[in-house]
Amino acid sequence: MEPTKMMETERIPEPTLRRLPWYLAYLKLAADQGENFISSTQIARAINVSASQIAKDLSLLNVSGKTRVGYDVKSLIEVLEDFLGFRQTRQAYLFGVGNLGGALLHDKGLSQYGLEIVAGFDVNPAVIGQTINGIPVYHIDEYPAMRTTSSICIGILTVPVEKAQAVAECMVAGGIKAVWNFTPFRIHMPENIVVQNTSIYAHMALIFNRLERR
Amino acid sequence: MEPTKMMETERIPEPTLRRLPWYLAYLKLAADQGENFISSTQIARAINVSASQIAKDLSLLNVSGKTRVGYDVKSLIEVLEDFLGFRQTRQAYLFGVGNLGGALLHDKGLSQYGLEIVAGFDVNPAVIGQTINGIPVYHIDEYPAMRTTSSICIGILTVPVEKAQAVAECMVAGGIKAVWNFTPFRIHMPENIVVQNTSIYAHMALIFNRLERR
Repeated sequence: MEPTKMMETERIPEPTLRRLPWYLAYLKLAADQGENFISSTQIARAINVSASQIAKDLSLLNVSGKTRVGYDVKSLIEVLEDFLGFRQTRQAYLFGVGNLGGALLHDKGLSQYGLEIVAGFDVNPAVIGQTINGIPVYHIDEYPAMRTTSSICIGILTVPVEKAQAVAECMVAGGIKAVWNFTPFRIHMPENIVVQNTSIYAHMALIFNRLERR
Repeated sequence: MEPTKMMETERIPEPTLRRLPWYLAYLKLAADQGENFISSTQIARAINVSASQIAKDLSLLNVSGKTRVGYDVKSLIEVLEDFLGFRQTRQAYLFGVGNLGGALLHDKGLSQYGLEIVAGFDVNPAVIGQTINGIPVYHIDEYPAMRTTSSICIGILTVPVEKAQAVAECMVAGGIKAVWNFTPFRIHMPENIVVQNTSIYAHMALIFNRLERR
């Protein structure tokens, strides 16, 4: 029984989870500028989140600032990186080496934050057998054979909309436990599968819309 | 005085705006499968949003389904694409041709949804003067000179965190009205500037976190 640990690991609400990377980004900046301690008020001023919200969020990670001194920058960075999973490397497969998929294979930033794409899958003869940024691309039919030898549980979904559901099901059948869905299609997955939607084109639409409504 | 138009253009809440691309993706799929009419119940089943929510969202675009028949698929696609701004092309500059920035230059999907990146800016001699996917990369110092000849008002921000605020200010000084911020840094911008945050690494952290809490 570790009630504290339980609280730490299960009770973090999603809005808090979404704010933690903002704090981390700012703290790294402060560390680069030689700051050793920082108050929630300073963080608040920099990133437009209230100081009390910041203190509350960080208390969920069992971190509290010292009176008059604030948070220890270096150790808070470590706690955040650790909690956010950026200090270990996980491997992933990418499904759909088209425009966005190919672009993600080029993004070395993913591995810097702990995600290493080890293979891409597609059905397009033009990319199968190629190596993009050092990552081999296979025919999707080769995926089922690889599942027996692989413990990879994160899959990136960048196929065309009309293939999204079928490929996501194929991913899960092959052992994928978390689907990072970059398509605008809302895939249906079993409850135990982690689904994260990242619709960059939807964000683009928000920009267009706001620009016109200005 | 056009009260209907006003309602259409100013009162769409952001959650609705975020759901519209899901409807569009599903409708395109239905159109490809030969569907001419579709009910909100069918859409609801497919994408896990309640039928009443869908009907409400679409009514904000002044679209309503016909009793017993539902929505005309083709014309609803047109309304959505038009409203979301996907039927016209806007030009954009990209600032920071590093990992993610370079990857976005490779993504032809952006132009398919109406955003054409016409130039990239950086300070790295290794990329300045290069052409990536047909897009020229200039030194950021050349940007101020280009502002006088350019009407481009969308800027994509993919610089390192510690440069985010300064480069965003430089963008705005050069006439950018909308900043698409891919950095995890919360930039401060004047109120009349549209800011859209897309933190793909933060989404990655959400996946890691949920996977461990399963």
